Amino acid sequence: MKKSPAALIAEKRDGKEHSADDIHALIQGFLDGDIADYQMSAWLMASYLRGLSQGEMLALTEAMLDSGRRLERGRAETLRVDKHSTGGVGDKVSLPLAPLVAACGLQVPMISGRGLGHTGGTLDKLESIPGFSVNISQARSRRILDRVGFVMMGQTRDIAPADRRIYALRDVTATVACEPLIVASILSKKLAETLDGLVLDVKVGRGAFMKDEKAARSLARSLVDVSQTSGTPAVALLSNMDTPLGTSIGNTLEVKESIAILRGTGPADTTELTIELGAQMLLLGKVTTSLVNARRRLRQALTSGYALERFAQMVELQGGDARVVDDLSLLPQARHRLLVKSPKAGTVSDIDPLALAHLSLDLGSGRKRASDKIDPGVGIELKAQLGDRVAQGELLAVIWSQDRSALHVQRAQAAFRVGRARPENPRLILSHRIVGKSLSR
Amino acid sequence: MKKSPAALIAEKRDGKEHSADDIHALIQGFLDGDIADYQMSAWLMASYLRGLSQGEMLALTEAMLDSGRRLERGRAETLRVDKHSTGGVGDKVSLPLAPLVAACGLQVPMISGRGLGHTGGTLDKLESIPGFSVNISQARSRRILDRVGFVMMGQTRDIAPADRRIYALRDVTATVACEPLIVASILSKKLAETLDGLVLDVKVGRGAFMKDEKAARSLARSLVDVSQTSGTPAVALLSNMDTPLGTSIGNTLEVKESIAILRGTGPADTTELTIELGAQMLLLGKVTTSLVNARRRLRQALTSGYALERFAQMVELQGGDARVVDDLSLLPQARHRLLVKSPKAGTVSDIDPLALAHLSLDLGSGRKRASDKIDPGVGIELKAQLGDRVAQGELLAVIWSQDRSALHVQRAQAAFRVGRARPENPRLILSHRIVGKSLSR
Repeated sequence: MKKSPAALIAEKRDGKEHSADDIHALIQGFLDGDIADYQMSAWLMASYLRGLSQGEMLALTEAMLDSGRRLERGRAETLRVDKHSTGGVGDKVSLPLAPLVAACGLQVPMISGRGLGHTGGTLDKLESIPGFSVNISQARSRRILDRVGFVMMGQTRDIAPADRRIYALRDVTATVACEPLIVASILSKKLAETLDGLVLDVKVGRGAFMKDEKAARSLARSLVDVSQTSGTPAVALLSNMDTPLGTSIGNTLEVKESIAILRGTGPADTTELTIELGAQMLLLGKVTTSLVNARRRLRQALTSGYALERFAQMVELQGGDARVVDDLSLLPQARHRLLVKSPKAGTVSDIDPLALAHLSLDLGSGRKRASDKIDPGVGIELKAQLGDRVAQGELLAVIWSQDRSALHVQRAQAAFRVGRARPENPRLILSHRIVGKSLSR
Repeated sequence: MKKSPAALIAEKRDGKEHSADDIHALIQGFLDGDIADYQMSAWLMASYLRGLSQGEMLALTEAMLDSGRRLERGRAETLRVDKHSTGGVGDKVSLPLAPLVAACGLQVPMISGRGLGHTGGTLDKLESIPGFSVNISQARSRRILDRVGFVMMGQTRDIAPADRRIYALRDVTATVACEPLIVASILSKKLAETLDGLVLDVKVGRGAFMKDEKAARSLARSLVDVSQTSGTPAVALLSNMDTPLGTSIGNTLEVKESIAILRGTGPADTTELTIELGAQMLLLGKVTTSLVNARRRLRQALTSGYALERFAQMVELQGGDARVVDDLSLLPQARHRLLVKSPKAGTVSDIDPLALAHLSLDLGSGRKRASDKIDPGVGIELKAQLGDRVAQGELLAVIWSQDRSALHVQRAQAAFRVGRARPENPRLILSHRIVGKSLSR
């Protein structure tokens, strides 16, 4: 007998484990309208507080994946890989990574999201390129994929529609920060790309959704295990998000940094992370079995300019002005540059990523509600890095702003700590290779 | 700053305590449409799993009470009391109790509910009287109250509308069985009657919502404490619901038993419970300070026929055919009477109230969904009581049914256990007088 929605909710409320069939019925019932929003949100809260087992998490991922279409498999001889990051401050790695990996012979059909909370979104960044469109039909995305090896697009309506509706509910019912729900949400979209391998960049630290390493490691394991069991080999990295990544926060500024990375002139940390994530993708895509070899190939693709050329081709095919690659002044820029100077001499011992992210959000680089319009030209350029010695009055950062409010400068200044002590050199990558194991069904 | 709905939900999700102001904002926001159904249901589930403090329960009750109108106070010289029962199988006590207490000089403005789950509803029972209306305007209810001292009506749209909407959500989101939510739901309606005293009959046992005495006692205490603190003196009784109450289950049958009680010829247990609840109401209504005296007055009101007369007057004023009091055949009756006989000789050692309640429900005496129509004429008459000696083939019960299905008889038979052992004589009333204390705000 089919269980009633209230009976399913009661099971989870009482900490019982759902069968895979019941979870599929829950998701299908929700899409069909037999299970109402208010019932789904009660189930989500019960799941948040009672947890979901590995089996339930797997079933939920697959039920959400099955709620929509998957991308068709491409040319048989080309393997397909992708990367997902759990989001950080200044994380623009997707932009250089996709063309770089495509330049090494793999397909990267990257379906990305918008900015979320304090973190920026790949789609928002790309849209600062004049004319660029992220709304691509399946047919067109396939043509672009065949031509340049990668495409960077938004979630279409027919990909994991259950995830889209459930995410909207979670966002307004305080049920976002729940590992199994996060896993199902991420993977239901990524697995719809019909991949041969998936690399997950799980961020840890003040600027990440996961503040502590234990929770991040657990999320990473769940992601790789569910992906693996669903038939997509996966690898996770744990990376540091205790300070901003790279030297820019804000859409235009992050596109500029991405182009610099593709030129081989980007900041050390974002370049390193791009190479490390790319190397794992190359291994999953069977381009090579050696990590050393993979890294070398990726560096060659940067220095040869081949990856940048791919990026420009993709921009062109997605309607954007590809000349930005050579002329950054074509990107939208905020009216004013406010200089943030060090109030004293010393060593930069801390940079608070959340404080800078919130400042950037307030400048207009992100949305506080879904209807907000993003200002691509605003943001923050970091001019000093952790551990740098600075003189009094030396530049710490430049704020790109539409107004001259002194408050912006004060807020940016407060995000830097300049002291005597040299900070420990933080490790960028905390775990290099968390691989998946098959879960029992 | 006003908290967002998601922030309020997150507080409860994390087990924090809401301020009274926040709870009022939650309820008001829900009524105003600023808090959506799916947000309220997430909050309800978080409250179910995290619990609410006494202060939160009090604030919730008062916020839900304040969401609607209260009955106007009546003539100053007449005190006003009422009774609420948490629901049992065969519990028709409200019907004889209200006229009985009114006959002793108090006002009883009884706002009752429909059948819920396996338990019958006072309104459904009354509606088996031809012509009887439970939908009474405030003006008319006041006239009836002034004339006969009591009225038996449904919850009008303007009484505790927040409760009505929240209850509808709880019913379909598995958040019914939660003490603080139960307390707020019951009291927000009862306190709207503007009472001088409230008696609560909390049922314990297999046929009740509370299966164990500890949970029932806790609910009783919470009810009296919140009522007391909100300004309405209250007393609770704990009563046994391990076997059906009285000798009838089903609407017409229960009206007949109620009239028998009012004639002084009702079953011992329902008569005793009616007298005990009435005695507490007389004490709260300051008719007397002596329980012995209160019981005597109530018995007099039965034997004098005065209470029955009041009942007939109320039926008449609420549009019903008052002749039913003298001619029970005017009540709707099911087509068939199926005889349930004992398969062997012995002592009735158990009668399962839930099994009989579900049988009665399936016969048509209650609703499985809100749109179901009730058949007033069906039900079960018990012909043997716990502890009775029966011969093989002796009558245990009579089923009033619209069909002759042998399955009904088998199900009824299975609800009786006939054995050798004489069961212990169960106590009808487990706790006589649980009084309230003031909670701190």
